[in-house]
Amino acid sequence: MNLTESNLYEELRRFLQDHQVTKNETQIEQHSHDESYHKASSPDLVVFPESTDEVSAVVKVANAYKTPVVPYGLGTSLEGHVIPYQHGITIDFSQMSKVLEVREKDFLVKVQPGVTRSQLNKELKKYGLFFSVDPGADATLGGMAATNASGTTSVRYGVMRDQVRDLEVVLAEGEVIHTGNLAQKSSSGYNLNSLFVGSEGTLGCITELTLKVYGIPEHVVAARASFRSVDDAVEAVVSILQAGVPIARVELVDEPSMKQANLFSETNYKEQPTLFLEFHGNEPGLNHDVEFTKEIVKDHHCEAIYFEDDNAARNRLWEARHNLAYAYVHGNPGKKLMVTDVCVPISELAGAIKHAREQVNELNLNGGILGHVGDGNYHILLMMDMDDPEEVKKAEQLNEQIVEYALQRGGTCTGEHGVGFGKMKYQHKEHGQALQVMEKIKLALDQREILNPYKLVHQKRNSL
Amino acid sequence: MNLTESNLYEELRRFLQDHQVTKNETQIEQHSHDESYHKASSPDLVVFPESTDEVSAVVKVANAYKTPVVPYGLGTSLEGHVIPYQHGITIDFSQMSKVLEVREKDFLVKVQPGVTRSQLNKELKKYGLFFSVDPGADATLGGMAATNASGTTSVRYGVMRDQVRDLEVVLAEGEVIHTGNLAQKSSSGYNLNSLFVGSEGTLGCITELTLKVYGIPEHVVAARASFRSVDDAVEAVVSILQAGVPIARVELVDEPSMKQANLFSETNYKEQPTLFLEFHGNEPGLNHDVEFTKEIVKDHHCEAIYFEDDNAARNRLWEARHNLAYAYVHGNPGKKLMVTDVCVPISELAGAIKHAREQVNELNLNGGILGHVGDGNYHILLMMDMDDPEEVKKAEQLNEQIVEYALQRGGTCTGEHGVGFGKMKYQHKEHGQALQVMEKIKLALDQREILNPYKLVHQKRNSL
Repeated sequence: MNLTESNLYEELRRFLQDHQVTKNETQIEQHSHDESYHKASSPDLVVFPESTDEVSAVVKVANAYKTPVVPYGLGTSLEGHVIPYQHGITIDFSQMSKVLEVREKDFLVKVQPGVTRSQLNKELKKYGLFFSVDPGADATLGGMAATNASGTTSVRYGVMRDQVRDLEVVLAEGEVIHTGNLAQKSSSGYNLNSLFVGSEGTLGCITELTLKVYGIPEHVVAARASFRSVDDAVEAVVSILQAGVPIARVELVDEPSMKQANLFSETNYKEQPTLFLEFHGNEPGLNHDVEFTKEIVKDHHCEAIYFEDDNAARNRLWEARHNLAYAYVHGNPGKKLMVTDVCVPISELAGAIKHAREQVNELNLNGGILGHVGDGNYHILLMMDMDDPEEVKKAEQLNEQIVEYALQRGGTCTGEHGVGFGKMKYQHKEHGQALQVMEKIKLALDQREILNPYKLVHQKRNSL
Repeated sequence: MNLTESNLYEELRRFLQDHQVTKNETQIEQHSHDESYHKASSPDLVVFPESTDEVSAVVKVANAYKTPVVPYGLGTSLEGHVIPYQHGITIDFSQMSKVLEVREKDFLVKVQPGVTRSQLNKELKKYGLFFSVDPGADATLGGMAATNASGTTSVRYGVMRDQVRDLEVVLAEGEVIHTGNLAQKSSSGYNLNSLFVGSEGTLGCITELTLKVYGIPEHVVAARASFRSVDDAVEAVVSILQAGVPIARVELVDEPSMKQANLFSETNYKEQPTLFLEFHGNEPGLNHDVEFTKEIVKDHHCEAIYFEDDNAARNRLWEARHNLAYAYVHGNPGKKLMVTDVCVPISELAGAIKHAREQVNELNLNGGILGHVGDGNYHILLMMDMDDPEEVKKAEQLNEQIVEYALQRGGTCTGEHGVGFGKMKYQHKEHGQALQVMEKIKLALDQREILNPYKLVHQKRNSL
């Protein structure tokens, strides 16, 4: 069939209501970008399905017309995942945002993809439960599964992939499948859960998620520890992990980032390289862990450690940490955010961060370093003037050097943000022949290449 | 090319030495079965490669001749995974059994597929580390990855899939890929690690594994708790999990199985439904957990709880548990072992085990129930007289009823043993349309269907 925008619209209107299909300019603009520096590109249409059946019907039409389909949560992605470079239909999941079922006894919850993590946690609190993955942004759970998001708590509870028990997915021809089941473990068939988590909409659209949740810990203590140098802070983290302390969060914030945090969050934390820590457990066990950690950080020249065990101070601390990206954006009006996202084996972390700082200084860029150092994952936050081609070039050069360094040491080009458009160019270098396996899978499941094309993996890579 | 056995042999001898290719009758027989009741079938040849290059060369020959290839570890599988129903070449990995690297700081170890878990743990002990997955049998790590094995500790540390950081795999045309990297987390590309773990040799042959290991816990306590009924024991486990006690092991052994254990292991444990428990942690935290657990089991009519905190008593306890399958085999000479392996959501576990016991009694079969109840995974062990078609029929009927019950409640037909040949008939019922996705992946990666054919998934399912 030949696509004309008007007959595509009419096809969709056969089963969607007027307010569910739009070409409204504001909506088109809103769905043309994410939170990154990547170039915007507009969808032809945005649809707002309210059920799996409607998503399936949309995808069937798209397949018939060979029109690209891009699933969209809240647009908080950082590598251009939701930008429709081939135009077509953007499926906005904001009208599928119900918490469908809380299975308290099974520590499971069933949600629609448009539910955000804070919405879910508000609901779960009633049951004494919480959802662990915490990427900072209040992203949708569909989006978080699509990119295999993680964040501050993954050192203890794992990443998004570890929480997904089952997904309902609409495939390229509109078929609806389930990728898992409700049992805690299974060796039945290929593990489709983990294949679809992190597939960034290139294999199907997630329409329902069953996720693992946890009991709110009996006791929680948070702490801030200031160090003379980033090196000391990182070495302290390595020692804490070595010692087997089951730390729940351990975040590094460097000196420039502490300044941004104080400015934005109106805190008055010491402006030194800082670890933000959190401990979960029963009281006696946790006290033991805390004492042990105090000794370890002292061995690494920690200059001061403050504990916050009341809720309000703890929330303030984590809010300051979470708002850091926004603090940078807010403090640099007109500029665009680029965030590097490599992850290295923990034994390589101190060297990697040192190398990163040297590169930032050498290129005369202005960037803060922070990260989920317990996982070996760190970010450089750069605010770029997109009208200054020199600055953009230097920032891209930095990103390349950082990735190259990580790959040479057994690391990955993206620890948690995903590939999207921005990390596609590193896929061959990172995966070698395995990239062909990914391409074969993509082609087997999406023969007409309508699902989020030119993202993650595609046949003509580097041709854009 | 047309296959004749002799030119296949000669092709292989071009790069393998005499002792690496065999048609020796004893060897052929040994590689014709696993530890289950499934019917034996002989390979044409067994090869013993010593390197990835040799495996790749073997697979290339097999592909050229369109000859089936079955990877073989130690043959401890329970669903006929390694039985070459289409004959062809069995690749025995016993000559690839080196621990290649221990990355202490990264809690990673790199091994060849023929290394067994006890061999690995012996090596790791020198570093104060241990490998967590513990399926009972001293299986090879390649085999454990191929079936996504788990066992007594997965309630705390996760299953095999959770431990695999990277695999080296030889694909159907002899290409060698890596499925992951050394970083703790990655959102780069499709997650091939989890796809190949549990693929049972149908997508490729694993030639190297990088696995997560753990620090030996500071403090360990084991316990046995006897209950009036299986129901009480199961409900106690549900309450322990609800209470958030981070239990490291919690195993149910029913009354007939306790009798078998005492007979085989020369123990004199109480012959009542029993939970075998283990706690890992720092001393004060663990004491708190133990006290809490004592209260919980008391609420569930526990009649006695014994703690073993010295190493020897603890080892005796776990040996008795691990030897249970062998105890049944040993106690029933001439009979063959059938083990059911469903896993259900924990809220359904008490009902499922009750239903299982009723079915066993109703069919007048002689079977013990035991399992990893913290995961919702339990087994019925049946010793079958394969010459008694009536008994075999009843056992198969039981298995079907058990699976049916589990599937209706969101469970899975196999929690940890895998699909192999025995669970293939349940795949359509369990996965529905998702089975077609698996079939597409299989076909995309193994076009000539040489890799462990007629296992897990195949185009003409149920045709055997």
